[in-house]
Amino acid sequence: MSTHADQRNGPAEDRIGSYPRVVIVGAGFGGLRVAKDLKGAPVDITLIDRRNHHLFQPLLYQVATAGLSPADIAVPIRSVLRGQKNIRVLMDEVVGVDTQRQVVRTRAREIPYDDLIVAVGSEPSYFGHDEWARLSPNLKTVEDATAIRSQILEAFERAEAAEDEAPRRRLMTFVLVGGGPTGIEMAGAIAELAKRALARDFHAIDPRSARIILIEAGPRLLAGFPESLSRYAHRALGRMGVEVRCDLPVEKIDGDGVTAGGERIEAASVIWCAGVRARAAAAWLGAEADKAGRVKVGPDLSLPGYPDVFVIGDAAGALTKKGEPLPGLATVAKQQGAFVARLIRRRLRGDKRRMRFRYRNYGELATIGRSHAVADFGWIRVTGWLGWFVWSFVHIYFLIDFRSRLMVFVNWAWAYASFGRGARLITGG
Amino acid sequence: MSTHADQRNGPAEDRIGSYPRVVIVGAGFGGLRVAKDLKGAPVDITLIDRRNHHLFQPLLYQVATAGLSPADIAVPIRSVLRGQKNIRVLMDEVVGVDTQRQVVRTRAREIPYDDLIVAVGSEPSYFGHDEWARLSPNLKTVEDATAIRSQILEAFERAEAAEDEAPRRRLMTFVLVGGGPTGIEMAGAIAELAKRALARDFHAIDPRSARIILIEAGPRLLAGFPESLSRYAHRALGRMGVEVRCDLPVEKIDGDGVTAGGERIEAASVIWCAGVRARAAAAWLGAEADKAGRVKVGPDLSLPGYPDVFVIGDAAGALTKKGEPLPGLATVAKQQGAFVARLIRRRLRGDKRRMRFRYRNYGELATIGRSHAVADFGWIRVTGWLGWFVWSFVHIYFLIDFRSRLMVFVNWAWAYASFGRGARLITGG
Repeated sequence: MSTHADQRNGPAEDRIGSYPRVVIVGAGFGGLRVAKDLKGAPVDITLIDRRNHHLFQPLLYQVATAGLSPADIAVPIRSVLRGQKNIRVLMDEVVGVDTQRQVVRTRAREIPYDDLIVAVGSEPSYFGHDEWARLSPNLKTVEDATAIRSQILEAFERAEAAEDEAPRRRLMTFVLVGGGPTGIEMAGAIAELAKRALARDFHAIDPRSARIILIEAGPRLLAGFPESLSRYAHRALGRMGVEVRCDLPVEKIDGDGVTAGGERIEAASVIWCAGVRARAAAAWLGAEADKAGRVKVGPDLSLPGYPDVFVIGDAAGALTKKGEPLPGLATVAKQQGAFVARLIRRRLRGDKRRMRFRYRNYGELATIGRSHAVADFGWIRVTGWLGWFVWSFVHIYFLIDFRSRLMVFVNWAWAYASFGRGARLITGG
Repeated sequence: MSTHADQRNGPAEDRIGSYPRVVIVGAGFGGLRVAKDLKGAPVDITLIDRRNHHLFQPLLYQVATAGLSPADIAVPIRSVLRGQKNIRVLMDEVVGVDTQRQVVRTRAREIPYDDLIVAVGSEPSYFGHDEWARLSPNLKTVEDATAIRSQILEAFERAEAAEDEAPRRRLMTFVLVGGGPTGIEMAGAIAELAKRALARDFHAIDPRSARIILIEAGPRLLAGFPESLSRYAHRALGRMGVEVRCDLPVEKIDGDGVTAGGERIEAASVIWCAGVRARAAAAWLGAEADKAGRVKVGPDLSLPGYPDVFVIGDAAGALTKKGEPLPGLATVAKQQGAFVARLIRRRLRGDKRRMRFRYRNYGELATIGRSHAVADFGWIRVTGWLGWFVWSFVHIYFLIDFRSRLMVFVNWAWAYASFGRGARLITGG
């Protein structure tokens, strides 16, 4: 693999040559895993991402609620892959794929591939109401998180300055749409922010009187978890002062609030934590997709008819043994990335046997707030302080580098001791 | 002072009443010091700022060069003043002052005062070339810093993707305009970023070959420091690979570079570290200003003819004993803030004797990079590793709260050990 080191500083094109060209689109959990697991393999990898950083999305809600800074959970893709000589990282935006000519098209160039891994992830879905996107922000990027942070903090500032009770109440009402992990994490974190971190900082208002309402269209929170954990989360949120409302499908969102299940809630902040859909991958590939936009893939995660094109992670419509779609979790994407890397390594050795991806469910976690979380490991379910401890440990452990672990740990230790939130900045617009 | 606690949650207006009303505009170093030094005094203080945070500007260049996160050096004004009952913090934008009716006008309201402290600071000045602002960003706010950070990091990304040598060279050339403390700090930090943190992260380019050019219109760097320290800074920057060019007044800035002293330098990034001017205070007050926009004030920092209106910090044109304007330093603003608080306390006791502000120069510091700084304490001058140690200690010490100190310390310790820069995020636009 020394050819790469030798050609350092030469024109970029030189490097692509003798080895099979592996192109990975997207440096999320799945794409990054493929890249890392191909370390040392006789391939020329190009990893393309629109952003310069890999984002640890499971903690993004803590950026949105002023607990962490973006740089604590976002790591430059280049520095993650620094030691790996067979890879080239490109910050560029893919606009299409030509599966016949085997090239990926970005805005400025075409990049040929022998193997293609599409790991572009998902984006928020407003279920056909794209006009809500403007009124109800979602949480997908660093910019989304800092914008929501500014919106929440500014609501309290404007409430403090307001002269009348009605606008003040409206400003101090926060609606979270969607009772999945993101919704309950956001609801718990906003409750802690209002009732603890901000509690003594205002004069005209009492932030502890803020209303935090979590609405869910279905009959229970955390639909993907066992019912006992849903009930625990519901009770725990209630004790934190969050109003949990199930069976309340959203009908309308406007600038002043939300209408759900026939009920009107006046709220200056309506935050979208509901559905996601796969990004544009199916259209690029001219492939069949399920109704959430996930590309239908074969048992080895390749595109039917294209054994050298793989789709993994949230963009893939891979199925469980029971025929249900796999959940959009980091662990699914990582296992799929590891699988594809293994498959490519086998083929490089001339082994053409068929492989079949099997998801191993190691468990699922969601936190509600200080000392409250739920963990479902299948063979055991954990809640309360122990669940929270497990949740904290697992999240620190899975952070991508030492610096992130250090920063998140220091932030959490400080927040645990002080009940404070350290990143209370209103920035932008 | 218990009246404030009692009126918590009542309408904001109730609180202003029996005590003299002190209005402070701006929560920088000066305004915040007045507020804190009036703790417990029988006054009703309103502190108004456009932002929700106090920013520790001396370390802002480290945000712009990916060393620190914004939240490490920006603290919510409310939480700084949490324990203080005689103060109300208002996030609002002042648009004028009526000195006859004694009211401060914001966009939405009028706020009456008995004593007014104007501490609005300074803003970048392009010396009559406001059209350069768009082409050459400056460093004054958190948003400025993250925008410059994105610009620098994106230049390397685009250079990596560039196919031709000319645009690649242009992208990897960084010009800093202005050889004051900000200019040398930025130049040193960009050099460390390129030559250390990014060095091994690219394939097509070698970041160590980046050109960092510091241009200064005058004959030497750090004009406010003794000549021996200017020479030291010049040499230290040279050793770090920064090209220092004095006697090079900027004539033109465009999208492709800069022309200075008749010489053309092609550069994608031209960062403005040159002049500042006072903010709009003089116009609001209908007051006389010097050519940098600073309001002319009397020996007690009050506006001539208005003994209850004070101007402090960068917005004030206070003079040294020799008749020279005081430098725009945090320490000047803080000493002036303490002075005005003392004066107001005296008057509250019925003591009408005249007071005269005197600046005590405890020293001045500037850092060039890892293990290089200059410190001038008048009686002793320190450079090199010792200067850098003093610089680091002083900056941690003067940070506004424990959390900032902890975060900056942890970041610096990590960076010192790893040579890394932890906040390498390209965000926004």
